[in-house]
Amino acid sequence: MTRLLVIGGSDAGISAALQAHEIDPRAEISVLLADEYPNYSICGLPFYLSGETPDHRQLAHRTAFDGIDILTNHRAVSVHPATQTVDVVRGANGRAETMRYDHLIIATGAVPVRPQGLPGLDLPGVYGLHTMGDGFAVQSRLMGSEARSAIIVGAGYIGVEMADALRHRGVDVTLVSHTDPVFPSIDPSFGRLIGEELSRHGVRVVAACTVERIEAAGNRRGLTVSGSGGFAATADLVLVATGVRPDTTLAATAGIALGPSGAIRVTQRMETTIPGIGAAGDCVETWHRILQRSAYLPLGTTAHKQGRVAGENAVGGARLFAGSVGSQTVKVFELAIARTGLREAEARTAGFDPVTIETETWDHKAYYPGAQKLRIRVTGDRRTGRLLGAQILGHWRSEVSKRIDVFAAALFHGMGVEDLNDLDLSYTPPFSSPWDPVQMGAQAWMSAVKTGADKSFTADRPTNLEKGTQHESP
Amino acid sequence: MTRLLVIGGSDAGISAALQAHEIDPRAEISVLLADEYPNYSICGLPFYLSGETPDHRQLAHRTAFDGIDILTNHRAVSVHPATQTVDVVRGANGRAETMRYDHLIIATGAVPVRPQGLPGLDLPGVYGLHTMGDGFAVQSRLMGSEARSAIIVGAGYIGVEMADALRHRGVDVTLVSHTDPVFPSIDPSFGRLIGEELSRHGVRVVAACTVERIEAAGNRRGLTVSGSGGFAATADLVLVATGVRPDTTLAATAGIALGPSGAIRVTQRMETTIPGIGAAGDCVETWHRILQRSAYLPLGTTAHKQGRVAGENAVGGARLFAGSVGSQTVKVFELAIARTGLREAEARTAGFDPVTIETETWDHKAYYPGAQKLRIRVTGDRRTGRLLGAQILGHWRSEVSKRIDVFAAALFHGMGVEDLNDLDLSYTPPFSSPWDPVQMGAQAWMSAVKTGADKSFTADRPTNLEKGTQHESP
Repeated sequence: MTRLLVIGGSDAGISAALQAHEIDPRAEISVLLADEYPNYSICGLPFYLSGETPDHRQLAHRTAFDGIDILTNHRAVSVHPATQTVDVVRGANGRAETMRYDHLIIATGAVPVRPQGLPGLDLPGVYGLHTMGDGFAVQSRLMGSEARSAIIVGAGYIGVEMADALRHRGVDVTLVSHTDPVFPSIDPSFGRLIGEELSRHGVRVVAACTVERIEAAGNRRGLTVSGSGGFAATADLVLVATGVRPDTTLAATAGIALGPSGAIRVTQRMETTIPGIGAAGDCVETWHRILQRSAYLPLGTTAHKQGRVAGENAVGGARLFAGSVGSQTVKVFELAIARTGLREAEARTAGFDPVTIETETWDHKAYYPGAQKLRIRVTGDRRTGRLLGAQILGHWRSEVSKRIDVFAAALFHGMGVEDLNDLDLSYTPPFSSPWDPVQMGAQAWMSAVKTGADKSFTADRPTNLEKGTQHESP
Repeated sequence: MTRLLVIGGSDAGISAALQAHEIDPRAEISVLLADEYPNYSICGLPFYLSGETPDHRQLAHRTAFDGIDILTNHRAVSVHPATQTVDVVRGANGRAETMRYDHLIIATGAVPVRPQGLPGLDLPGVYGLHTMGDGFAVQSRLMGSEARSAIIVGAGYIGVEMADALRHRGVDVTLVSHTDPVFPSIDPSFGRLIGEELSRHGVRVVAACTVERIEAAGNRRGLTVSGSGGFAATADLVLVATGVRPDTTLAATAGIALGPSGAIRVTQRMETTIPGIGAAGDCVETWHRILQRSAYLPLGTTAHKQGRVAGENAVGGARLFAGSVGSQTVKVFELAIARTGLREAEARTAGFDPVTIETETWDHKAYYPGAQKLRIRVTGDRRTGRLLGAQILGHWRSEVSKRIDVFAAALFHGMGVEDLNDLDLSYTPPFSSPWDPVQMGAQAWMSAVKTGADKSFTADRPTNLEKGTQHESP
């Protein structure tokens, strides 16, 4: 009987355990958690803090699983491949115990990046947002002391979601972004629209500002954040959301190799460099299906997929992780934004000859009530016509994220931009057009590349492709 | 300079003309329309009649196109391949003229099926719903004479949409369905839920009833519809929506071969059996990508795709129509229903060993407000694990139609059910889960087939293939 030990009880760890049990119900499976929150949706913390998800327990769909032993407050402190054992400390002041494994899966996740040399990071009132504990600390501050204002440092996924969440709760929010516009993981034309949406909902957006110092606000309550360009603002709390890095301490000290990105190196079978030890989730490098190399892409969706593969292989399977294409989506107030694949600069670095064309169209037939404009950016390779990536921005009811999934499925199969027109997508006037907006974006790209209109296209400005093209659906 | 003549100015005809112009801007392109409504969205008629689309002109996104000569009220009456000419009658009482072509595209569409031998079909107050003219006639009846009640014969796409539309307008609606439950193009478990949704919104649903007679209502105003099982009801108007058949008169008399379904036989290049004559849309047979044979599948989406291919090839292109996978969707009151691929009985007839598993799950993370249940039916081949089809039913805001599109993209590429888990679909709690419901449906299928649970899953298995024209153009 295989004894499978999983270190980590978040997305990757739980998925691994579940799939191992599914494939081999007789396997003896234990999941070690450093805290007491197995299977909690960390992605849900902004909604807990906004008040939309009132009870934190809602964030866990399930916390107990048939045939899986969930060991909360069990912190793995060292892994010994030679003896196939893990030293585990139980509780805050527990003694180390030793647990044996036949197969081990490391799913230790990520830890927040702490901006190097930023003074004041450890002051009371400065928070990260990566664990349930972080969430409780922020919640407690918001509830307990009439916190009415917040400064968010970082305008990526967590930063913009938290700006939305805190405004939902009536808190004054200043969002400080290193980049201009905010939200650098999509193209600037969309970033600007996100910035406008944030401003429209009362967020003070400070772009192109490098935070230099956090300090107690002198004789006033709260904290003062100072940055480049003379920026200074004071608020009751500061949230630092400047990304994550892989938590690899345990793996590295066990002699497991890391990759160039600093995350654990794994095969597509989710095996580490030590036999019998797999790894998955935010602590590992991810195979990128378009780049055909590994990269660091910490995402819940990927963690689940990798965990499932690692779990299956731990009990004798031979499954491969098929790779990420970089699909992501976020809701910011009334907007949904999604991306998949490569952006133009990423594609150029990877050796492609990318062209990006932006199209604006309706999310469904304009004659049916409630139609909203969608913006679609398609990136393809000029030489081969291959689809390389796409970005969509629109109303949050415009099925933006499932539309990016059509692009994601196309990318998965290496389709050409033109090939998107071959996909038999569903249509009824309340939901789409006979050519879905995804296909209109593809047609606009084809037309622009054919006519050379792309050569006059500057990345920040949508071209006017209205005339002479077919991308607006008859 | 190529002279391209297109007969028909609806989806296929306009798409053909647009793409021909896109590929060869010097081509001389004329589109002949029997009526005066080029590029009108016939799928939009229910929304015009519900009042949601107040002005019928909104149904046409554009009616004029650079480089394309739109000839309204030009009825093609005969095609002469030997001389490459078409005889055309202009207006109601016009004389025949002859027009020359280098390349001809026939896009004459479909005509409503008239239930054979049904007395009363031609009485005043009995309507079809296939042309703008039909729409105006119904509209006029609804507006002019205080029509307060309607009987709809046929509970397919048009029937259920019109039930919704007329209820929206406050009309009493009786929907008579030959099948039980209604809406036979999806599985009965979903059909029953659609029936309940119709009833919940005040539609009187009469299932398993064959209409036998329509007659004037004696001394009362209106029409009486009688049917099997003693059914009789009287209403101000009767709408007959019992499917369509290809309009092939022009093609057949020109010597163009029809296929076994009675529609025009075409290659994947959308060429008929006569050189220089292409055809597309509801008048032709459609290549079914999963069945790997042609079938009659009249749909707006397909018509656009076929038209685009026919148009490109007419001006020297060499494009192939990649085939339909049978994607369709409809909104009925608060529900969205979508299907793609084969249903179980269709798959069995085609030689597969199909298994269908139904899963219920949330459309997005249940902790985020507004979560709704989705039902997903996945059909796969037991022997090979290949995905064969899927059906989804849920709230109309649950991105049902774009979720079916993920299945459609997977079907296009011949993916296995298990492979769906490899797709890198986007996630944020307001829109999905780390495994999208599409993937949860796939996992449930895998699990059921593995454990043999599918062998006891018979309750909702469709008993036989619906015969005739189950697929109406939305």
